[in-house]
Amino acid sequence: MISDYLNEMKEGVDKALERYLLPSDRYPQNLIKSMHYSVFAGGKRLRPILVLAAAEATNGPVKQIMPFALGVELIHTYTLIHDDLPALDNDDLRRGKPTNHRAFGEAAAILAGDALQTYAFQLMTDTKLMKEIPTEAILRAVHELSQAVGPLGTIGGQLVDLQSEGKQIDAPLLEYIHIHKTGCLIRASIRSGGILSQCTEKDLDTLTHFGENIGLAFQIIDDILDVVGDQAVIGKDSKSDIKSRKATYPALLGIEESKKRAKNLIDDGIGYLDHFDSSANHLREIALYFISRTH
Amino acid sequence: MISDYLNEMKEGVDKALERYLLPSDRYPQNLIKSMHYSVFAGGKRLRPILVLAAAEATNGPVKQIMPFALGVELIHTYTLIHDDLPALDNDDLRRGKPTNHRAFGEAAAILAGDALQTYAFQLMTDTKLMKEIPTEAILRAVHELSQAVGPLGTIGGQLVDLQSEGKQIDAPLLEYIHIHKTGCLIRASIRSGGILSQCTEKDLDTLTHFGENIGLAFQIIDDILDVVGDQAVIGKDSKSDIKSRKATYPALLGIEESKKRAKNLIDDGIGYLDHFDSSANHLREIALYFISRTH
Repeated sequence: MISDYLNEMKEGVDKALERYLLPSDRYPQNLIKSMHYSVFAGGKRLRPILVLAAAEATNGPVKQIMPFALGVELIHTYTLIHDDLPALDNDDLRRGKPTNHRAFGEAAAILAGDALQTYAFQLMTDTKLMKEIPTEAILRAVHELSQAVGPLGTIGGQLVDLQSEGKQIDAPLLEYIHIHKTGCLIRASIRSGGILSQCTEKDLDTLTHFGENIGLAFQIIDDILDVVGDQAVIGKDSKSDIKSRKATYPALLGIEESKKRAKNLIDDGIGYLDHFDSSANHLREIALYFISRTH
Repeated sequence: MISDYLNEMKEGVDKALERYLLPSDRYPQNLIKSMHYSVFAGGKRLRPILVLAAAEATNGPVKQIMPFALGVELIHTYTLIHDDLPALDNDDLRRGKPTNHRAFGEAAAILAGDALQTYAFQLMTDTKLMKEIPTEAILRAVHELSQAVGPLGTIGGQLVDLQSEGKQIDAPLLEYIHIHKTGCLIRASIRSGGILSQCTEKDLDTLTHFGENIGLAFQIIDDILDVVGDQAVIGKDSKSDIKSRKATYPALLGIEESKKRAKNLIDDGIGYLDHFDSSANHLREIALYFISRTH
């Protein structure tokens, strides 16, 4: 069962985070507590699981690259904290709990986000924690990941998303936002697993195609759930994107067409994985699980 | 003349920044322009110069590690942008110009800061730009630097500094703030130059002691200039720290005692450099230049 695998992996990631994130009583406590608050706010740990599953698909080391996978999750967490800030999305709730700045104040939320990004790079470059992985592979993976979440990746997507609020936007611009805001990190997470496994360039191409499909599909599915889901399931105000007049796929294409588009992306993504044998089964099942959430 | 050396090095850093920072017409323009605005706001480029001078002191490659040195400057720039935000220091001027959020709005300033941190790590891990440097050395330097500017370093110092505003604080707490907010990055800049040169551990110890002395001295000198300097010289509202009721050395010890403390730190710092021959002359002169600014 894919849900068993996802639960087991989530537990593994959570345990590792408890081990490698600074203890919550470290000084300055306000900062560290604010970091802990958002890191342990109930995320599904999807991105680190994708790192690990991609390593499995390419027959690489899985447990040994956990510190890198944690870095990916911390980067994702920091972008959420900053995205929720009053100057950006001004959200009060995230996963059913007060957002970081509502709980700790704006200054601590900004600094906790900054610190989580820095700490992510600290973990991802910790050769003592990843002794078995060649330094060239680590450096390449960190470099790629930084590119994916930088001004031409995640952060670019966040800015364009903000600028587009309340405006009529077309499909190409919506796709730009989704690919950058969400897709780049998912693609890089999957590629990182391959790079850290020192897979072949052919394997890496396959992971790239799979990652691009899954990344865009994931955001479309998230948009759909934001309309049809309820607060208990998605953990934030449902219809919050509509409230803030954000551009979404359902708003642009309608629910049914959006579902179709997501399903096609997932199907094509899984198609690429034919290149791998059963080692990629978890990647395949994760992709199917994504799309099953919209039924 | 040390001023000739500093000017020449500053020009080199500026040229390299123009080359390696994204072109300012890249999309999304608002974000990239906001990044450029603060990066080219007239900084003295002291930290990257310290990286390069420390490499020179340990007979390592200087030009080849420029991308790493630029990363250090971008991290410094991002901390300034976030520090100036309304939720933190709420400053309107920086180096005589409107702060980033005054020029581009709060959202763009937060995201430009985030992007500069990410882009710094992208540059610092770019093995194509630093082909001559062994990957182990690069990875170690990036790891150290991330530690220095994270929650137990720069960001921790920023938070405690904020929390202490308007409060009576004692000398140990003030020293904590200064060492973390300013000292950690200066120490790490200097150590990085040695690490990237693959210097001996004895050399690295020397650089560490020098860096710790210079780092603390630099912040004390900055505090002094904030009281006795004028806006034209230091480029921000003079007495701005007093205005915001920030803890400073002059406030705690008085101007004369603060000058004495800074001078002792510089003298001791230069003393450590006896371990090196003339290769460390630029480091020595930079330290002397620091203290000369308070005359």
